[in-house]
Amino acid sequence: MPGKSFSSLMDTYERLIARTNPVNERFHNGIFERYACPVLTREHIPPFWMYDADPAANPFMMQRLGVNAVFNSGAIFLNGKYCLVARVEGADRKSFFAVAESTSPTEGFRFRDHPIVLPDTEPDEVNVYDMRLTQHEDGWIYGIFCSECRDQSSGDLSAAVTGAGIARTKDLTAWERLPNLRTRSGQQRNAVLHPRFVGGRYAFYTRPMDGFIQAGSGGGIGFGLCDEIGNAVIKDETIIRPRCYHTVSESKNGEGTVPILTDRGWIHIAHGVCSTAARLRYVLYAFATALEDPSRVIAQPGGMLLGPLGRERVGDVGNVVFTNGAIACGDGRIFIYYASSDTRLHVAGTDVKRLCDYVFNTPEDPLRSADCVRQRITLIDGNLRFLRSQG
Amino acid sequence: MPGKSFSSLMDTYERLIARTNPVNERFHNGIFERYACPVLTREHIPPFWMYDADPAANPFMMQRLGVNAVFNSGAIFLNGKYCLVARVEGADRKSFFAVAESTSPTEGFRFRDHPIVLPDTEPDEVNVYDMRLTQHEDGWIYGIFCSECRDQSSGDLSAAVTGAGIARTKDLTAWERLPNLRTRSGQQRNAVLHPRFVGGRYAFYTRPMDGFIQAGSGGGIGFGLCDEIGNAVIKDETIIRPRCYHTVSESKNGEGTVPILTDRGWIHIAHGVCSTAARLRYVLYAFATALEDPSRVIAQPGGMLLGPLGRERVGDVGNVVFTNGAIACGDGRIFIYYASSDTRLHVAGTDVKRLCDYVFNTPEDPLRSADCVRQRITLIDGNLRFLRSQG
Repeated sequence: MPGKSFSSLMDTYERLIARTNPVNERFHNGIFERYACPVLTREHIPPFWMYDADPAANPFMMQRLGVNAVFNSGAIFLNGKYCLVARVEGADRKSFFAVAESTSPTEGFRFRDHPIVLPDTEPDEVNVYDMRLTQHEDGWIYGIFCSECRDQSSGDLSAAVTGAGIARTKDLTAWERLPNLRTRSGQQRNAVLHPRFVGGRYAFYTRPMDGFIQAGSGGGIGFGLCDEIGNAVIKDETIIRPRCYHTVSESKNGEGTVPILTDRGWIHIAHGVCSTAARLRYVLYAFATALEDPSRVIAQPGGMLLGPLGRERVGDVGNVVFTNGAIACGDGRIFIYYASSDTRLHVAGTDVKRLCDYVFNTPEDPLRSADCVRQRITLIDGNLRFLRSQG
Repeated sequence: MPGKSFSSLMDTYERLIARTNPVNERFHNGIFERYACPVLTREHIPPFWMYDADPAANPFMMQRLGVNAVFNSGAIFLNGKYCLVARVEGADRKSFFAVAESTSPTEGFRFRDHPIVLPDTEPDEVNVYDMRLTQHEDGWIYGIFCSECRDQSSGDLSAAVTGAGIARTKDLTAWERLPNLRTRSGQQRNAVLHPRFVGGRYAFYTRPMDGFIQAGSGGGIGFGLCDEIGNAVIKDETIIRPRCYHTVSESKNGEGTVPILTDRGWIHIAHGVCSTAARLRYVLYAFATALEDPSRVIAQPGGMLLGPLGRERVGDVGNVVFTNGAIACGDGRIFIYYASSDTRLHVAGTDVKRLCDYVFNTPEDPLRSADCVRQRITLIDGNLRFLRSQG
């Protein structure tokens, strides 16, 4: 089996980047469109990130540093480009961040020549992942991400402690790192910085874990304020979206994208987790908070917004969809970048009118099967009357 | 992106219902046929159960009450139709029951206009699922189902307590609910009512759980009698099919369909569960009980009857096949309705002669690898002698 030449690897890569990405016509729910192809996969990694291109040093033209997966991405529109800061997981399981950008929201994403070099300020930090990008009104672009260390206090070799890392940039290339967020909870994951000052302070959505609330594997989506971003300390965390029995967020939940501003409220796209005989299932769900108080939930449509479908179900961590980035365009279009099964990144497209209609007109979850049947029969009977009236 | 019209959604739905369902020719074991398409999926849900059909109220024609999955179904032949009482799971995770029927056993299943309205008599009941339909000789059709509450005594928010609900009907539309089955076990799942009186009493197959037998997550398939169905109390449960180390039912097992009457015995199609590095695997297996004593096992073919295959492996809960309904026709044909991966419903077809041959002539599980090799070498050597004798 002769090896491929580096230039043929580059040709394959360029054909992938040039691929168009039509809407998946077989999926329909009226709320959003799914696009047929993932927008980022490990095949989108430039060959010069993995191969030594010099045939003298790499006679078999083999990968020297493989990449396993490209998934959970922060997302902003910047300088005329849709920019994703993806979680790239090497063949060695360590994740890092890299910017992929395109003039289209749904295709053509290409990584910059280098991954992000995050200042190495936390000596015990072993892994970083899942960056949320917030274009804050203070003028900076913040990246809030999971900063993970080994749990030295545990006898379990695989036990980890997670915190919320904070870095900021103007161009996604040069990053300044600030001290990690400090809260009363022992751990943090899925922290998201709100784009506006709230009462003159920086506002975070959090997911306090063990030690703060005795609620299994996470006490729900929290909210807290801090005075300074360069020394971010949240003294009080309030749970604004608790986990709830036999809903899509029974076992865990967490803030996803940065809240999306609409004239009816801030729209949040979060993830909810339930436990099954085949481990955990992750879906996306939505809710809204008040414009004047982004800690006050004003709408909570029942059920999932988006669940894993077809080939999305299969990957390193099956039956997972997860989002940490969406882009709301000036013309009302909204693109939700969601990863499937911790392996690849997809895009779903909607617009502010449809997303508002969904969030504010979808009935709440009535929490009991008998009440769900009543709710559905109300819909059915209304429809049957309407359809008869139409002849 | 313009939305679809309600009538175009109805057209797509009608095309699905009209789809024919040929035998899957790529599968063969001589015991049963698999059919190529699922008989029920979430696409079989009528659009008027999910969308508000009135464009004035639903300008983007979006789903207001989504459906996530259609799976585990009870099954009977009634008034010239093959009737399935499916488990329908909404986008909010709550399940409910709905009747789909067809004049064909393998295609054309269409839901009645409304889901089943089960009398709401258990205030703490949050979820119901997995109904077994028994055409009892007392003249009623019974539906025995899982009735699930939150476990208030547990600190774990996702802990549930399951019991066996009992309802009865003549037409699958109007249901009378009776008090839940009471047994000495703390919990029940997979309870099935036998179609005949046994010693003048109602006979149940059960799956006693925690508190009854200290055997992990279920002590095997039990059997018990009760005097009244309107106040169903089983005082003594006997385990007739225990779990067994390193068999297909090592971790859990449970009665599946209502037992099928043959002239050699009652044939049972149950599920067996074993634990793997990717959690649980569910398969179907069969056994037979004596005509005069349906608690006495008289045949137990080794191994699985039907395991997940190909695309069946993928879904909300992967690597699961499960049955709670089969229909034995007057002409000897038998249709086993089985769900895959808690997502969709399939059908397998066989007949009473083949199923009896399978159950009574398949060797028992010898329980040890060395003995399994001896068993197989006996088969092989017999074959080689036979084939040589045929020249």
